[in-house]
Amino acid sequence: MNKQGNISMPVIRRLPKYYRTLSELLQNDITRISSKELSIRLGLTASQIRQDLSCFGGFGQQGYGYKVSQLKQEIGNILGMNFKYKTILLGAGNLGKAVAMYMLSKDRSLSICGIFDKDPNIIGKDINNITVSNIDELENFCNINKPEVAIICVPKSNAAPTFDRLYALGIKNYWNFSNYDFNVMHDDVIVENTHISDSFMTLCYLISNQKN
Amino acid sequence: MNKQGNISMPVIRRLPKYYRTLSELLQNDITRISSKELSIRLGLTASQIRQDLSCFGGFGQQGYGYKVSQLKQEIGNILGMNFKYKTILLGAGNLGKAVAMYMLSKDRSLSICGIFDKDPNIIGKDINNITVSNIDELENFCNINKPEVAIICVPKSNAAPTFDRLYALGIKNYWNFSNYDFNVMHDDVIVENTHISDSFMTLCYLISNQKN
Repeated sequence: MNKQGNISMPVIRRLPKYYRTLSELLQNDITRISSKELSIRLGLTASQIRQDLSCFGGFGQQGYGYKVSQLKQEIGNILGMNFKYKTILLGAGNLGKAVAMYMLSKDRSLSICGIFDKDPNIIGKDINNITVSNIDELENFCNINKPEVAIICVPKSNAAPTFDRLYALGIKNYWNFSNYDFNVMHDDVIVENTHISDSFMTLCYLISNQKN
Repeated sequence: MNKQGNISMPVIRRLPKYYRTLSELLQNDITRISSKELSIRLGLTASQIRQDLSCFGGFGQQGYGYKVSQLKQEIGNILGMNFKYKTILLGAGNLGKAVAMYMLSKDRSLSICGIFDKDPNIIGKDINNITVSNIDELENFCNINKPEVAIICVPKSNAAPTFDRLYALGIKNYWNFSNYDFNVMHDDVIVENTHISDSFMTLCYLISNQKN
C-alpha cells in the first residue's frame, strides 16, 4: 500500500476508526475478517471500505477478506504512527492532564518532552514523571530541545498569545483544544482542532432536531 | 430562517464555527459584517456561506452583509442552544472534570444534574457544587430524575458496560469521549463522538504526510 497525495479529508478522518477497530479485533484474537463483517463493525458499506483503501493502492484479496494485523500495520504506516515527534504541552489543568495521561500512557508517536503552565499551584507538580515547568521557561526550553509539535490546552482567553509565542519559536504543528481558531491566520501551519464546544453544539443540534 | 430536514452533516458541523465566530465578533462590538469579511474569518468562501445559510432559508441582504447578533441568534436557534436537557456525566477523572467545568461554567443547554464515578477517592468530592455520586446509585437516580443525555468520560475498557446500563435506563442521547464506538450497535441512539485518539491519529497523518 503506497501513500498517494490529495487524499480527501473525509477519507483521512475515517482511517483512525479503521485503526481502532482493527486493534480491537486483534485484541479479541480475530486475525482475518471479511469485508462484509468489517463493514458492519465500521458502520460503512463494503464498497465504501474498498473505495477508501483504494486511495492507498487497495488491500485484501477477492474472497479472502482482510488480514487484520497486516491491514492495521499498513494503516498505521499511512497514519504516520511509526514516527516520533518531540512534543510540548501547554496548559496542565484538567484537560491538559487528561491529554498528557493519554499521550504518556502508551508509546505514542507524539512524545511529550515538556509540560508548561503559568499557575504556581500547578508548576513543579509531576504528570506521569514529567514535571510541569513555568511558562516563562518556554523560549529557553524550545531553543535547546527544538520540539516539533505543541498541544494547546490553555483557556481560550490565553490561546492567541500562547500561539504567537510558539509560532515565533518556529513550531508549525499544533493539536488545539482551546476552542480558538489558529489556522485561519497562518497557512503554513498544521492544526488539528479538537473543539469541545463544537462537538457540544453539534450534539445539541442532533438532539433538538430529532425532537422537532 | 426555518429549519429544514436532511441538512448534510458537513453543513451541520460548520454551524458551531459560525456561532463561535459570531460570538467573538459581538464581544469585539462588531455588529454588522460583510459576507466577504465573514468568509475570511471563517476560512470559507462567501459563496459557501451563502450556500450553508440557504439550507436554513437564507439570511442577509445583498450589499448589506449580515447583522451579527441576529445571525448568531438564528444559528443558536438552529443548533438548539435554547433548549435545556437534563444531563448526567459518567467518569469524573481529569477529562470528566474538564468537561464538567466547561458545561457548568456557563448557562449551557446541557444542564448537568448528576456526576458519577466508581473510584472511592473521587466519590463525594464536589465539581462546581455538584457532588460526585457512587455509580451504584445510577439506576435509582435516573429513575427519579429522568436525565435525557449522558456524557461518557469513563475509560474505554469500562465504556461498553456503562453504555449498556444507560441504554437500559432509556437514555438515548450520548456525548461520548471514551474512544469506544456505541452507535454501530444501536440505530435508535444519538451519539456525538469526541474521540481524542482519532484526532491524535489525524494529526499524525497530517504531520507525516507533509514531510514525505
